Amino acid sequence: MQLGIIGLGRMGANIARRLLRAQHEVVVYNRSADKVQALAADGAVGVTSIEALVGELAAPRAIWVMLPAGDTTEQMIATLADLLEPGDVIIDGGNTFYKDDIRRAGELAARQLHYVDVGTSGGVWGLERGYCLMIGGRQEVVGRLDPLFDTLAPGYGDIPRTPGRNPANDRAERGYIHAGPAGAGHFVKMVHNGIEYGLMQAYAEGFDILKTKAAESLPEAERFALDLADIAEVWRRGSVVSSWLLDLTAQALASDVKLSRFSGEVADSGEGRWTIDAAVEQAVPVPVLASALFARFRSRQDHTYGERLLSAMRFGFGGHVEEHGGGESAVAHASRPAGLPDSAL
Amino acid sequence: MQLGIIGLGRMGANIARRLLRAQHEVVVYNRSADKVQALAADGAVGVTSIEALVGELAAPRAIWVMLPAGDTTEQMIATLADLLEPGDVIIDGGNTFYKDDIRRAGELAARQLHYVDVGTSGGVWGLERGYCLMIGGRQEVVGRLDPLFDTLAPGYGDIPRTPGRNPANDRAERGYIHAGPAGAGHFVKMVHNGIEYGLMQAYAEGFDILKTKAAESLPEAERFALDLADIAEVWRRGSVVSSWLLDLTAQALASDVKLSRFSGEVADSGEGRWTIDAAVEQAVPVPVLASALFARFRSRQDHTYGERLLSAMRFGFGGHVEEHGGGESAVAHASRPAGLPDSAL
Amino acid sequence: MQLGIIGLGRMGANIARRLLRAQHEVVVYNRSADKVQALAADGAVGVTSIEALVGELAAPRAIWVMLPAGDTTEQMIATLADLLEPGDVIIDGGNTFYKDDIRRAGELAARQLHYVDVGTSGGVWGLERGYCLMIGGRQEVVGRLDPLFDTLAPGYGDIPRTPGRNPANDRAERGYIHAGPAGAGHFVKMVHNGIEYGLMQAYAEGFDILKTKAAESLPEAERFALDLADIAEVWRRGSVVSSWLLDLTAQALASDVKLSRFSGEVADSGEGRWTIDAAVEQAVPVPVLASALFARFRSRQDHTYGERLLSAMRFGFGGHVEEHGGGESAVAHASRPAGLPDSAL
Amino acid sequence: MQLGIIGLGRMGANIARRLLRAQHEVVVYNRSADKVQALAADGAVGVTSIEALVGELAAPRAIWVMLPAGDTTEQMIATLADLLEPGDVIIDGGNTFYKDDIRRAGELAARQLHYVDVGTSGGVWGLERGYCLMIGGRQEVVGRLDPLFDTLAPGYGDIPRTPGRNPANDRAERGYIHAGPAGAGHFVKMVHNGIEYGLMQAYAEGFDILKTKAAESLPEAERFALDLADIAEVWRRGSVVSSWLLDLTAQALASDVKLSRFSGEVADSGEGRWTIDAAVEQAVPVPVLASALFARFRSRQDHTYGERLLSAMRFGFGGHVEEHGGGESAVAHASRPAGLPDSAL
Repeated sequence: MQLGIIGLGRMGANIARRLLRAQHEVVVYNRSADKVQALAADGAVGVTSIEALVGELAAPRAIWVMLPAGDTTEQMIATLADLLEPGDVIIDGGNTFYKDDIRRAGELAARQLHYVDVGTSGGVWGLERGYCLMIGGRQEVVGRLDPLFDTLAPGYGDIPRTPGRNPANDRAERGYIHAGPAGAGHFVKMVHNGIEYGLMQAYAEGFDILKTKAAESLPEAERFALDLADIAEVWRRGSVVSSWLLDLTAQALASDVKLSRFSGEVADSGEGRWTIDAAVEQAVPVPVLASALFARFRSRQDHTYGERLLSAMRFGFGGHVEEHGGGESAVAHASRPAGLPDSAL
Repeated sequence: MQLGIIGLGRMGANIARRLLRAQHEVVVYNRSADKVQALAADGAVGVTSIEALVGELAAPRAIWVMLPAGDTTEQMIATLADLLEPGDVIIDGGNTFYKDDIRRAGELAARQLHYVDVGTSGGVWGLERGYCLMIGGRQEVVGRLDPLFDTLAPGYGDIPRTPGRNPANDRAERGYIHAGPAGAGHFVKMVHNGIEYGLMQAYAEGFDILKTKAAESLPEAERFALDLADIAEVWRRGSVVSSWLLDLTAQALASDVKLSRFSGEVADSGEGRWTIDAAVEQAVPVPVLASALFARFRSRQDHTYGERLLSAMRFGFGGHVEEHGGGESAVAHASRPAGLPDSAL
Repeated sequence: MQLGIIGLGRMGANIARRLLRAQHEVVVYNRSADKVQALAADGAVGVTSIEALVGELAAPRAIWVMLPAGDTTEQMIATLADLLEPGDVIIDGGNTFYKDDIRRAGELAARQLHYVDVGTSGGVWGLERGYCLMIGGRQEVVGRLDPLFDTLAPGYGDIPRTPGRNPANDRAERGYIHAGPAGAGHFVKMVHNGIEYGLMQAYAEGFDILKTKAAESLPEAERFALDLADIAEVWRRGSVVSSWLLDLTAQALASDVKLSRFSGEVADSGEGRWTIDAAVEQAVPVPVLASALFARFRSRQDHTYGERLLSAMRFGFGGHVEEHGGGESAVAHASRPAGLPDSAL
Repeated sequence: MQLGIIGLGRMGANIARRLLRAQHEVVVYNRSADKVQALAADGAVGVTSIEALVGELAAPRAIWVMLPAGDTTEQMIATLADLLEPGDVIIDGGNTFYKDDIRRAGELAARQLHYVDVGTSGGVWGLERGYCLMIGGRQEVVGRLDPLFDTLAPGYGDIPRTPGRNPANDRAERGYIHAGPAGAGHFVKMVHNGIEYGLMQAYAEGFDILKTKAAESLPEAERFALDLADIAEVWRRGSVVSSWLLDLTAQALASDVKLSRFSGEVADSGEGRWTIDAAVEQAVPVPVLASALFARFRSRQDHTYGERLLSAMRFGFGGHVEEHGGGESAVAHASRPAGLPDSAL
């Protein structure tokens, strides 16, 4: 099947390659020409303008936009909308906020253009493992694109089948789903990322407890110098917490158990935030997902203003002055809370 | 190798069976004789008293106690201590609090008896998949028992090897570790369960957001009736959140997406609680693990007294009276917060 | 000074009365005429249409809209905008989302109309105690309305002066502030309510711990039947946690320590939710404010779907079936976590 | 009435002074003699040994121990127990863990000595304002000491009376309560401090949101440079969040709105931790109190190991490398989450 792809970052380029390997016809455009040439070398048709891309494709066209979410994607879709013909379909494979999908689908429908949103998971591993796809859009449009999705998805692989699945409905087992109307694909992907934050933070906290069990502030008999790499590894087999994230943890710890190349400042992206906003809108209690996001916010700051305010209040009622410096010693001190009468507040 | 096992609940009986299948010699005792007979039919030597168990074993003996943690295990160990000889080893495979292990190891050492604590993960799947073992105790004692642990553990299986592992140190890759001195095994298992709570709650919250996305209180264009079974299934392939817990989720949802056989009152056990206590003792921030535990506490109550107090305060400052009943409508109402001036507090 | 007031709910009516008592001239409108008549009896000029209200006021007019936030307020402002003259000012005293204020101020400025947003705290107590006012809008417009705000605010009262305050800048000490441009008033009020949720939940959790200290599941020597009314009362004097919310708590507990008239289903309004959204937008970690909101969400549900999913996972790995019913016994059971080997997962 | 006091830190010395002002007879001991002399100058009887203290007091004696909780207090009580006579009473006014009180009371009862635990709130303000006292012990013993508690407590003061209180039971209204048997006093004080942490964190988070509303990463029209000192001040009057902690906040911000003398590393003491342990033991969900404690733990660290692990996982699945440095820019970046396709995981 024929597909145009706009945006040849790592994800866009690998999606193109996975399609090419399955003999799909792929026309690619990227702002910088070298990436286009690289794909052309792998068998794609490379073009140097959006107009040329549209010209190379036979109607009804399908164009996959794989650009940074937000303004960049928004403008590209506006550009495309002016060039395309009724019946053509624009696929947004990026990390768009699902309410933007709903709006866009409505705007494009008024011009008889179709819109499909695809939440795409798989990252640097997707080219080989395949991409887990969560798709939103009209039934017949998504159906028309099925050969593409089928190629991109991981397929059954060697993962054990789930007992009780309806064998006739096997898209989910092959790694892609049509989640619902426009926006539903990105909504499911958004929640996926929200869960991902929670899972990651659960492991992070657990390993923190293991790590600090060697602290000198603990009674000597209760101090353990645990081998975290071994622990991550052993949990991969037969334990309840085995997961792909644990596999990655085991790899990272096997390589450098001190994790010294990582600063500990953890970025977050739109999906993690939108998940909390959605939960708030839907009145769903999500303490774990929210705590995981907040831990990332906190990780990127030296001290919050709020923490200084806590110290100021403590000074106000008890005359305590929190000393500068001494992170390590402060922790050690606090782990033997003494409850001095002078701080009896 | 020869092993005595006390306690033939599901875990104890399956551990015996897995050892028997590998030609180990197993002597078993259980308070109720029928369980002993069942194991004897599978090849174990069955005995009807602790004294007989000790008598059947050649010194230096190894006896695996697999009983409910707490008083039951404590008393059994006291009983054994009076019957055993210097050099014998008692293995506690249950869910004992690790500080109890440390204390016991010291008490037994004074009598020249050895103590090994084994955190055992694997549950109903362990007989076939093997048990993930986290072991605490003295190096030479744990080493002596290695043939047993090697049999009980899952082995390499078909799980991809972790790049960067030292091939010489392969116990962890075969599914068991010697974590450290007495208590270290149960400590690692305890944190394992703490993480497990966090992981489970992350999935639970995510699926709650997906489920409530169909609520009528949302604008119609933003309402999605998502197929949760399909979503769990598709995430099993190529996504970041794939895990064994997700496999179980997919199975549960494939069987009954309404989960109607489950009440939603979620039990918790000692390990989840002790994990939080350990974090508090070690001054480790664990918002996700704690939130997961608190969600279980809350799940088992109709309303907390604290919630009534919130309502009482709201009445005090604003004259609001929270109505009885109407859970569903209350949620619906709240998802369109109106901010009435009369409640402008 | 002259003021029009639209909306005579409890807040609007009491604001009118407090102004009347200070000899301001107040023209009032309400959809239902009886409320207008009641205010007219107290000295207000009552009118029966928006047009009449505008007609009664001398230019430049000031009109305080005190209606439910959202569509009702939005439409009233649109109606007023068509009737007013350049230089007139619309005051929104309700609980409007601050981004709506910013948009409206821009729209009205294009028509040479002024817009002022007033976050108003004080509730049923405001008529006597005065209202704490957080005001957004252009400097000269807010300044023009100062006599009204000065009357509505509580004044110095008998609250001890804060050392270090600049005596010249005494609005804040008299209970009102000009927080910034349009939207700033409601933004500050929004955060106020977010904090309020956190404070309330802190008390609620603390009293929950006190209450459950009498549980039979605890060792008898560690069980205390505490007098919660006395505790709330004693903390009002000389303790760090004294506050107005604690005063209300003490009143509620003095009246009925069982709080039996309150269901425990706790409503929430827009401000509490928008506070979390703002924190997420601004990358501020707010675990306490978010937890407080989530506790209210949870309080209005019997069981979440997520909780059922937790039970389903537990069944999947351990064969546990959470029993229906038995909230009390379930709690009691859980407070003596036994760590049965059979659940060794 | 006669009282011995051991420990003349700020709290002990001020308790002695408040009693002296009301004509009680106070015998004081402290390890360093200068503090004894200072109190003697204020009218106390100063002694230089524990034996002398016991000798100066008439039986049945009452001795208030005001030393650091833990070993120091434990040893002093052991010393006293050897010197005292049946019927004498030891009062522990420090911050002892309530289970230690229960144990001690039992041990002392076997020697016919009485034990009373007093949770004492008031800090540097107590000498003038009085101390809020939460008392545990046997009814008749606590009753015997009533004149002392009555003097130390704040009394009715000018705080409005709570409607509905039983006028006959006025101890709580005068600022002290007999909470229950030994340990109950410190238990109530412990929960008091747990609540205090929650309240403080709620304000801290709210002011963080206000502070960061001026961030350049926000759209210019939505940026507010708020006057935090004015906001704290205005909330003191007529608002729901008024409290003593808010008074202290207003003072701190009036003095230096940048809070530049405070590092933001916030200490915690035993009570905050034991509150969480108690909640875990009693199966009470306390997300706010726990989050407040965890925020303090986090405030004392540069980065947790867990945060580095989060970064390592992100690198594992997406090739992200979190950069060192750039706290400020990292925050700014993250507040405009871009959702790059390359990070589509």
